[in-house]
Amino acid sequence: MRILGIDPGLQTTGFGVVDVDGPRLSYVASGTIRTTALDRGDLPGRLKLLFDGITEVAKRYQPDASAVEIVFVNVNPQSTLLLGQARGAALAALVTSLLPVAEYTALQMKKAVAGHGRAGKDQIQEMVKRLLQLPGLPGPDAADALGIAITHAHAGAAMARLAEVSPLQRRQHAMYKGGRSY
Amino acid sequence: MRILGIDPGLQTTGFGVVDVDGPRLSYVASGTIRTTALDRGDLPGRLKLLFDGITEVAKRYQPDASAVEIVFVNVNPQSTLLLGQARGAALAALVTSLLPVAEYTALQMKKAVAGHGRAGKDQIQEMVKRLLQLPGLPGPDAADALGIAITHAHAGAAMARLAEVSPLQRRQHAMYKGGRSY
Repeated sequence: MRILGIDPGLQTTGFGVVDVDGPRLSYVASGTIRTTALDRGDLPGRLKLLFDGITEVAKRYQPDASAVEIVFVNVNPQSTLLLGQARGAALAALVTSLLPVAEYTALQMKKAVAGHGRAGKDQIQEMVKRLLQLPGLPGPDAADALGIAITHAHAGAAMARLAEVSPLQRRQHAMYKGGRSY
Repeated sequence: MRILGIDPGLQTTGFGVVDVDGPRLSYVASGTIRTTALDRGDLPGRLKLLFDGITEVAKRYQPDASAVEIVFVNVNPQSTLLLGQARGAALAALVTSLLPVAEYTALQMKKAVAGHGRAGKDQIQEMVKRLLQLPGLPGPDAADALGIAITHAHAGAAMARLAEVSPLQRRQHAMYKGGRSY
């Protein structure tokens, strides 16, 4: 299974693509989609860049599933509104690419990748590098996106192990699509 | 020129299509896109309904331009985040339909439609009915969307009048795309 992870933001959106084969994870691609070349006030234009970028990544790498970081409200309500609009455009790109979407919090991602919820950006970058045997550190946004993809892979593996236990749990597994699932 | 007005919301998004021929406005269509049939927690699914609905409206009525109400931060930050995501999906649908997008506040719309900024929902419905010579009152979401389309028509007409004055202003008119324009 190939998973596309997304760390959404209005200025920079990280993406990371990971292949999962049983317990094995392998790196496929990662990067960032930037909207900073456009005028700050050109919200529709920036959302178009973001939407088109994610659509292009989905077309190129043909993932089977996607996972997106759950964003939180900011102390600045205007920033919350802008981040919400970026995340809305990102989700729209994933669902129009006909991808199932799972959502995980940053806390869930940190626990899955670093083993505890207090991991900093640099620890996430280091752990993602190790887990995917990368030659160098990924950028922070790409690392978060790869971390979200890894979280979805771990969650799927955990559910698959449960599914071996009983027919009831197998049925639950069939319904399973992610941490907060749709 | 045909204008598509949008009043975005996560539960209900109003749309209204208006033709403008000089000073004449004529009603083409209006309605609401609802996402309430889906589970409240299914945000990706609801954003897909919204995105697909607006894309379908744009395809069916072939507008030349679009105008969207600027939403404001709510007292509840979580609601602000949800509204932002809905608006982001709506804007993504308009820009991927290759429509220019103008944005107006509810205050600008109320002034354009009712002549003052303190107009209530019912006054907007009544004025939209009169301006477009509708046989009955439009629903409140559709009325707001038609009001936003009318606001864009008025703004365009005001700029066209200015453009008759001087070549400089004509050049400004050529650059014009809306209240807050892109």
